[in-house]
Amino acid sequence: MRTHHCNELRSANIGETVTLIGWVNSARDHGGVIFTDLRDREGFTQCVFRPEENSDAAKLSHQLRDEDVIQVTGKVSARLEGTVNAKIATGEIEIVATELVIVNKADVLPFQLDKELSNEDLRMKYRYLDIRRARMTRNLRTRHRVTKATRDFLDEQGFCEIETPILSKSTPEGARDFLVPSRLQAGHFYALPQAPQQYKQLLMVGGIEKYFQIAKCFRDEDLRADRQPEFTQIDLEASFVDQEDIIGLVEGLLGRVFKEARDAEIPASFDRITWKEAMNVYGSDKPDRRFEMKLTDLGEVFANSSFKVFSGALASGGVVKAINAKGFSGITTGQVEALTQTAIQAGAKGLAYIQVRGETVDTWRSPITKFLSPEEIEAMKSALQVEPGDLVLFGAGPWEQVCEILGRVRLAVAAMQNLLEGNEELNFLWVTEFPLLAWDEESGRHVAVHHPFTRPIKEDEPKLLAGELSTDLRAQAYDVVLNGHELGGGSIRIHEGALQTAMFKALGISEEQAAEEFGHILDAFRFGAPPHGGLALGLDRLVMLICGEDSIREVIAFPKNNKGSDLMSQSPAEVDPKQLRDLRIQTVKKPGTPTAPAGA
Amino acid sequence: MRTHHCNELRSANIGETVTLIGWVNSARDHGGVIFTDLRDREGFTQCVFRPEENSDAAKLSHQLRDEDVIQVTGKVSARLEGTVNAKIATGEIEIVATELVIVNKADVLPFQLDKELSNEDLRMKYRYLDIRRARMTRNLRTRHRVTKATRDFLDEQGFCEIETPILSKSTPEGARDFLVPSRLQAGHFYALPQAPQQYKQLLMVGGIEKYFQIAKCFRDEDLRADRQPEFTQIDLEASFVDQEDIIGLVEGLLGRVFKEARDAEIPASFDRITWKEAMNVYGSDKPDRRFEMKLTDLGEVFANSSFKVFSGALASGGVVKAINAKGFSGITTGQVEALTQTAIQAGAKGLAYIQVRGETVDTWRSPITKFLSPEEIEAMKSALQVEPGDLVLFGAGPWEQVCEILGRVRLAVAAMQNLLEGNEELNFLWVTEFPLLAWDEESGRHVAVHHPFTRPIKEDEPKLLAGELSTDLRAQAYDVVLNGHELGGGSIRIHEGALQTAMFKALGISEEQAAEEFGHILDAFRFGAPPHGGLALGLDRLVMLICGEDSIREVIAFPKNNKGSDLMSQSPAEVDPKQLRDLRIQTVKKPGTPTAPAGA
Repeated sequence: MRTHHCNELRSANIGETVTLIGWVNSARDHGGVIFTDLRDREGFTQCVFRPEENSDAAKLSHQLRDEDVIQVTGKVSARLEGTVNAKIATGEIEIVATELVIVNKADVLPFQLDKELSNEDLRMKYRYLDIRRARMTRNLRTRHRVTKATRDFLDEQGFCEIETPILSKSTPEGARDFLVPSRLQAGHFYALPQAPQQYKQLLMVGGIEKYFQIAKCFRDEDLRADRQPEFTQIDLEASFVDQEDIIGLVEGLLGRVFKEARDAEIPASFDRITWKEAMNVYGSDKPDRRFEMKLTDLGEVFANSSFKVFSGALASGGVVKAINAKGFSGITTGQVEALTQTAIQAGAKGLAYIQVRGETVDTWRSPITKFLSPEEIEAMKSALQVEPGDLVLFGAGPWEQVCEILGRVRLAVAAMQNLLEGNEELNFLWVTEFPLLAWDEESGRHVAVHHPFTRPIKEDEPKLLAGELSTDLRAQAYDVVLNGHELGGGSIRIHEGALQTAMFKALGISEEQAAEEFGHILDAFRFGAPPHGGLALGLDRLVMLICGEDSIREVIAFPKNNKGSDLMSQSPAEVDPKQLRDLRIQTVKKPGTPTAPAGA
Repeated sequence: MRTHHCNELRSANIGETVTLIGWVNSARDHGGVIFTDLRDREGFTQCVFRPEENSDAAKLSHQLRDEDVIQVTGKVSARLEGTVNAKIATGEIEIVATELVIVNKADVLPFQLDKELSNEDLRMKYRYLDIRRARMTRNLRTRHRVTKATRDFLDEQGFCEIETPILSKSTPEGARDFLVPSRLQAGHFYALPQAPQQYKQLLMVGGIEKYFQIAKCFRDEDLRADRQPEFTQIDLEASFVDQEDIIGLVEGLLGRVFKEARDAEIPASFDRITWKEAMNVYGSDKPDRRFEMKLTDLGEVFANSSFKVFSGALASGGVVKAINAKGFSGITTGQVEALTQTAIQAGAKGLAYIQVRGETVDTWRSPITKFLSPEEIEAMKSALQVEPGDLVLFGAGPWEQVCEILGRVRLAVAAMQNLLEGNEELNFLWVTEFPLLAWDEESGRHVAVHHPFTRPIKEDEPKLLAGELSTDLRAQAYDVVLNGHELGGGSIRIHEGALQTAMFKALGISEEQAAEEFGHILDAFRFGAPPHGGLALGLDRLVMLICGEDSIREVIAFPKNNKGSDLMSQSPAEVDPKQLRDLRIQTVKKPGTPTAPAGA
């Protein structure tokens, strides 16, 4: 139906007769002659309908409206001098049409395609039109390049892509599952997988050695922020490997992906930092290191302070830390209030600060300087390299909490200061040695930080086996971070029954419970499980960052909104009562209150 | 953890010190010295533990049992003359071990890996062990090669892989949906997609032009025969194309796939046959043409027969047809009975046959020859080229029914005669011009043969628009067939609102119903939908045929059994009542009878 795409023709083609097909991007009447920009997936070509070439076609061209689908045959001609359009690849030529077929007329669109649209509901309702916009088309094609480069690279490395089930089993650990009622086995349910974790480990037991999958995963969470109920991960696992092998593999993979999808060279290997160091210095397990503003420990400065908020925190085993926001002493009262809210949401009682307006303390603005001795102030200035114009922000309390509070304040300050405006850096980082266990106040037990199959570091293995539990135990678990976003993470796994049993015990999972919920995994470990480990990368976020977008919804063809709805197809929806009868389920209006038997 | 894989070392490596890791495939004691075949994903290498090299390792080697994971370091050595094993790639050498690490001990396996196992339940329960068998590993790797070749080819052709949602919308047309209750919108349900049909058409409206996806699809059907509740298809769609374009594309795709996954050259283009011809000649819409035994029309022969079963069928507008099973006059009574059952299951009342034992009718064995005149017998012999030793099988009745009956009988006879034993032919075929509509007796209306978006052939378009409905209307729908298996099918779609409306009307779908169920598709057609069409290939079956397997379960890592169960992970399973409360659903024991409110 075409001889060329709309981005192909150049001066060298002048004189050729060609056929193009696509959408009318615009139709303009210049002195009774219609000019259109014809658009297809690849670009634009100007077509002109002159009565002297074909009077019927010229007449018909007056009916053209935006987004009509048309087929144009004509001769490639040079544009008149002064009408060359350098903005498009075919700007030197135009098609002088000899034939015009209107393939499909279009109604007036609900929104214009060449303008950014802030009404996301409208975009989503007409997603098939939204996708026609150059930005969305480009994003989806970039996503394709990312998955293609991933598959090419992993295939070359000997990895085998294997599909694991979507109709899977509910696992009690982890997030909330989506359930699928079974009709053939009434009262029983499949669950959609949160990740193919168990399957990929079982493939390692199965001797596959190198597995990957670009896998759909599902979590039935409340959809705050930028989450989707279904998301995609690049999931990989290998046998006979250690952490170094996985790290090297993923660095190679990301290098290939950024090269092919964004034409960017990234470092062959990334910096590494332990989780403890990341928390201590950046107050985050996914530090954004494109700017400094590090957390500085002030324990020595305030150990004996008469300011009890500081000295009291230290006395009870906590810390006092601060960040220096260079040049931000002019912060507004509203901004201070916003930062204080950020700190409070992270668990602080308030936020102590000093606006360092001049050289001397009397020029400063702060609610706390009056409590500090001149020696403390000097020591603090020295520790933080304070200069006039700076803003100092403090945290005091338990170590991890203070780190988190200041980590969030640090990011909020950077946003207020526009520190990253125009910054094109791609700052990759490995965060290693995550804790193995965390303490869950609510249930009064340890929980797995990564998941129950994560291996402790060699040095801490005996402690786990001996039941000497603490949150100091470190795991062979690692995250890869880009510009403050977690791209993905993984771990080396436990492959021996004894160590796995010790881990379940550490998590307060009884033998019976373990046998019931993880029986097949424990069984598998008895039959010659190889050492193995892996990692998963969040594809949606990776593509989002490569495309320079702020939301994963911009890189998903048909995303759900924050109520889990697809506004285009109107899903989820009510269903025919017969479908529920077949499944032997019924809906309840309030917990425990049955509706009338469905359709009975 | 290794320097080489277990298939790599050759005589050229003799003298090198290497490290291998893998599973003990067997351990044998020869005069106090242990020999093992060490196995990894790639192959086998013999290792020998001589006390003179390392007495500790030699001692430890006596503990080795099948499927232990071990790491062996040693020197590559020539095998003694007479002990070279030509069956394995590394058969010229062995590793004389200097170190042995038992990485993970294995219990005795529930079954042996080197024997075929008929107990499929046992295989499925321990699927992770079943996958260690060479055949399963090979199948899964072939599957990976098929998907990789597919992606490479379609990427080169400008196709863009786009993920469509798994949490999708229930569609009333088609098979039964799996449902997923929504927690955020109680009483509402997602459905798992039976195919990404609507999404891919909407992507065409979105200007993507060339889409593909290796897509998970779901059908909640009773799992007779070789079906799975979730299956995978190679799904593709393109704009500005006609049937020729899709056919050419898929021929190229299959050529690439068979080359890369099976090293087989297949024809650059496949034969084509219309649906009508396929039914008429082979009695099947997916004919196996690797053998003849064509259906022959005997209408002229029996038009005036005194055998009323034949002449009556003809008089009422039906047909009389027969097949000649060459050389099968010696069929047993039991086989005749089995063929008769096949015919009856296909809708016949019985199965008329002639065992042509000799030249003359008096030597024949048949329940019907006594009713036939000598002229009829001569004409039949001539039409079917009957020779002594043949078996003739008849069908009489309505055309489509007779075709189907004889088509199934034809396949059953070929199986009884072992006609395809040792046949390595790959016989590809396009079946075109499927009917647009079928008549559904039960609902008393026409239904879509392919789906409601399928386009009629140009010639039949006016009839559909005018509401002149019949099952004679032909569609631009096509199937690709390999050796009697449907590999896949597709169609050119309707892209105009008026034609789609006529199609819905033909299917008895009211305007309100169409608006409710397909509103977004009908909307989309108003905004400049391009002409488009596509096809989907069943990946599981394609890989099964490439691997030479008889069941798709042999090419799926973790399949379900015919009750929809995964015996390994025990899914589907009962769930925590809290999960159901969160979803505001409850199970009912019998339709209409609520259980006690879940956990209340």
